[in-house]
Amino acid sequence: MKFEVSAKVVYQAVSPSTLILNLQPFRSATQRVIEESFIADPDLKMKELNAIAGEKRFMIIEIPEAGEVKIDYKATVENELRMIPAQQLDDVPISLMPASALSYLNPSRYCQSDRLYRFAYNQFGGIEHAYHKVMAIREWIYTNVAYGGYTNAQTSAYDTITEQVGVCRDFAHLGIALCRALTIPARYFTGYAYQLNPPDFHACFEVYLGGHWVVIDATKLAPLNGLVKIATGVDAVDTAFASIFGNLQFTSLSVNSVSLNEMFTQLDFDDQSMGYSYL
Amino acid sequence: MKFEVSAKVVYQAVSPSTLILNLQPFRSATQRVIEESFIADPDLKMKELNAIAGEKRFMIIEIPEAGEVKIDYKATVENELRMIPAQQLDDVPISLMPASALSYLNPSRYCQSDRLYRFAYNQFGGIEHAYHKVMAIREWIYTNVAYGGYTNAQTSAYDTITEQVGVCRDFAHLGIALCRALTIPARYFTGYAYQLNPPDFHACFEVYLGGHWVVIDATKLAPLNGLVKIATGVDAVDTAFASIFGNLQFTSLSVNSVSLNEMFTQLDFDDQSMGYSYL
Amino acid sequence: MKFEVSAKVVYQAVSPSTLILNLQPFRSATQRVIEESFIADPDLKMKELNAIAGEKRFMIIEIPEAGEVKIDYKATVENELRMIPAQQLDDVPISLMPASALSYLNPSRYCQSDRLYRFAYNQFGGIEHAYHKVMAIREWIYTNVAYGGYTNAQTSAYDTITEQVGVCRDFAHLGIALCRALTIPARYFTGYAYQLNPPDFHACFEVYLGGHWVVIDATKLAPLNGLVKIATGVDAVDTAFASIFGNLQFTSLSVNSVSLNEMFTQLDFDDQSMGYSYL
Amino acid sequence: MKFEVSAKVVYQAVSPSTLILNLQPFRSATQRVIEESFIADPDLKMKELNAIAGEKRFMIIEIPEAGEVKIDYKATVENELRMIPAQQLDDVPISLMPASALSYLNPSRYCQSDRLYRFAYNQFGGIEHAYHKVMAIREWIYTNVAYGGYTNAQTSAYDTITEQVGVCRDFAHLGIALCRALTIPARYFTGYAYQLNPPDFHACFEVYLGGHWVVIDATKLAPLNGLVKIATGVDAVDTAFASIFGNLQFTSLSVNSVSLNEMFTQLDFDDQSMGYSYL
Repeated sequence: MKFEVSAKVVYQAVSPSTLILNLQPFRSATQRVIEESFIADPDLKMKELNAIAGEKRFMIIEIPEAGEVKIDYKATVENELRMIPAQQLDDVPISLMPASALSYLNPSRYCQSDRLYRFAYNQFGGIEHAYHKVMAIREWIYTNVAYGGYTNAQTSAYDTITEQVGVCRDFAHLGIALCRALTIPARYFTGYAYQLNPPDFHACFEVYLGGHWVVIDATKLAPLNGLVKIATGVDAVDTAFASIFGNLQFTSLSVNSVSLNEMFTQLDFDDQSMGYSYL
Repeated sequence: MKFEVSAKVVYQAVSPSTLILNLQPFRSATQRVIEESFIADPDLKMKELNAIAGEKRFMIIEIPEAGEVKIDYKATVENELRMIPAQQLDDVPISLMPASALSYLNPSRYCQSDRLYRFAYNQFGGIEHAYHKVMAIREWIYTNVAYGGYTNAQTSAYDTITEQVGVCRDFAHLGIALCRALTIPARYFTGYAYQLNPPDFHACFEVYLGGHWVVIDATKLAPLNGLVKIATGVDAVDTAFASIFGNLQFTSLSVNSVSLNEMFTQLDFDDQSMGYSYL
Repeated sequence: MKFEVSAKVVYQAVSPSTLILNLQPFRSATQRVIEESFIADPDLKMKELNAIAGEKRFMIIEIPEAGEVKIDYKATVENELRMIPAQQLDDVPISLMPASALSYLNPSRYCQSDRLYRFAYNQFGGIEHAYHKVMAIREWIYTNVAYGGYTNAQTSAYDTITEQVGVCRDFAHLGIALCRALTIPARYFTGYAYQLNPPDFHACFEVYLGGHWVVIDATKLAPLNGLVKIATGVDAVDTAFASIFGNLQFTSLSVNSVSLNEMFTQLDFDDQSMGYSYL
Repeated sequence: MKFEVSAKVVYQAVSPSTLILNLQPFRSATQRVIEESFIADPDLKMKELNAIAGEKRFMIIEIPEAGEVKIDYKATVENELRMIPAQQLDDVPISLMPASALSYLNPSRYCQSDRLYRFAYNQFGGIEHAYHKVMAIREWIYTNVAYGGYTNAQTSAYDTITEQVGVCRDFAHLGIALCRALTIPARYFTGYAYQLNPPDFHACFEVYLGGHWVVIDATKLAPLNGLVKIATGVDAVDTAFASIFGNLQFTSLSVNSVSLNEMFTQLDFDDQSMGYSYL
């Protein structure tokens, strides 16, 4: 699929600051950034870095003095979504898992899988096949957790499992925590999402099954085949779109994704015969 | 029913201390303490108090110097358990509730009902009749929470709902929190329990329905008609069997309940046509 | 002192509901409600209750149908503030404490004193006299906790001690929890506050020392001698100004306190030679 | 320095299981594993992996059937501890930090630095130089947190800052969280510790200052120059000595470190003129 994605962010700098932005789609064998422009107004010193682990490019921007800062990012991205029959998406034995997947079994700041073992086993442990477990987790979250903006930066999977309300970030954290509790590696996925309404960055998650990182969205708010990956990570802590060091007041954000495909048919969330992988 | 109940507690006082013991069955219209003896060895200054609110007698014991302290309590108690047909055990409208019941709608230290609203409504909100809601809560806890000693003094209903393991105290806290979240007044009940194995103090809870405080035990570990009420309160904080001020090392506790009835037929937990009230 | 206090609350009822309002000053030997009017528009069925324990009057209001509901409360209140020399405000031995004070040693929903023992002892345990301990707690909170509206209904003393930001409610919860951790009974105090800016309900706390309930305000935002007590309780759970059962949307609240005294000289928070008690 | 380190672990396998052990010292430019032997009894299929990010080697061991499993690990290790004058250990500006250090600014499962900003700034923010900030954090923990085994697998920095009791793991988590809250990258360090009494694995932490990872031990229980690094990571989640998949009962662990140096003079924790780095 091919999309033009864009993000405009405006800050008011109160003091000299450093801003790390994580807006740029990740480059991989299956996702090409055909062209992109990253413009700061005023013109600022910027440096692009790649995460050592995980999948993330980020831009470090030095803001030397107070004043308004506008960032205008635009990219044309082409990516492939691989379809994998559900029956191939079974557990990978621990001893065959690569180190890169093993680390996504650990609990993290917002995904305390270590406290969810019994809940996960009681609710989903009896389901035979790993992909069906994950689908059952997705449906449980979709059914029981209300979508709404009552959460805050402290809200974690341990809260959402009981409080049962949240936004895409909370849905993803809970999905990740439940999968890890069942020894299924899971990681946070952030990206641009075509047809997300209202337009914004989106968060969902990936699980490692059958040797693939399969993308799962418990909110069902955006077509799975309309995503452009920005980053994957342990949870929201290492995939935030912005990290601020200094005194920067957030002014506004607008995000967009336009389809450059001749036609776009959205995948059906109810068809569980296939899994979809961006990598 | 008639029982002889007893508790022996031994402490090693390291310094002069004050000990508050909550071992004595509550006296009420339906529970008579026929005789009791409360012996401290060595002989110590003791004062009995009654809680202002709640239902509790407690003994304040002054320990003037270091050394071993043995408490030997024994009582003969006769109480009545009232049977109320389930259909009479419906919600009491808020405007008709007495102040004494209203206060048991509030969240407390170990029963954070304010964080469990959506869980409670999603899981039990669709059940029509209040007593059946409570029975469904009891069954959910009994089925999902494993009985075992992995909890500690910090463990609360908010933990148990997810961690799904605990002892009688944790089962009671979770039941109380879920009931309060559904606007059903609920309070903690501690007592002596006939046929509890191994013998110990027991905890369960009471709900206020149809004008009665109905006793509920999500552990199903002891017959409902074999209980002798020591105290009711908001949760374990105001019904602890011992509160220690000073440096007292706990040495041992033994608790017992002997039936003085000609015969004892235990109530069937599966018969949900009746509710049982000690008051 | 003599004040005219008032509160106007407006709700939009979406469905038939019950509303419990806790707006009325508590009546006691030292606080007389000379006159008061409690008007609902439209005219609604109302019933006044008094808490069994604690100090609280509250009004239960039945709202039979959807629509706007306006409550207009006004009262003239005269109360006395007793001054007690600091040296008389020492610890009361446990064995001499009344049951009504003992219960305020327990942890509660928002005041988890059981988790703060070591912090409290490390920070304040070395201070000799109980009232000076309490004053040191007040100063620590005042100095370290920033006043601001970043907290929510979940925020507890356990959070505020570390997050160090909050509103009057959070300041009070932390003060209460630290006092209870040091075996000083402490309870939540809500009231009208003269010269509070902007006008609102205020929260602070009372400690039981030397046989008196001494009022403490770690925010220092309102004169101690300008308070009119509405309620005391374990913490915000049993002193909320409104409890809603049904679907009521909050529209607006305005609170006011006018001095009816010839002159008003506010007490000096820095003078620690005296304690002040409303009871 | 040169040490012979060893660890013997015994498990009782109840079912076929997979065990991941993280016992082996990390190999780096400044730490050479001269020889090592890793013996399983019975002989088991083992595979060594290296973490993608972080610094860790680990062994994945397949246990095909029930029965006792003994692991006997021994290694001779030579490492260098670099001394860096304190004045060189200042903050690295964000824009000059490598990606590998930036990721250690994020909060993690046990180090919720995002909730400790105000505490950290109120307590340590006024200290000028970054290394002195870190030393003040170390001293605050050492002074205020009692060393003792009252914590459990759930205990995090957010708990320890208030509960003020813990073991080396808890001391390290709190130090890491406070440093990250002050924008100082910090990571968990596990290793063998010479002269630790009783012998065990040890945990402390490293901070990134002046381009160096400087080792800090808030417990002061083992000489800084007697450590052999096993792993560094975000916190205890990715540096556990054992991760178990299946039903393995822990039987026993013994750990040891023997000096192969002619003499060993332990570094003085009170000399704050130098920082020490293993990398």
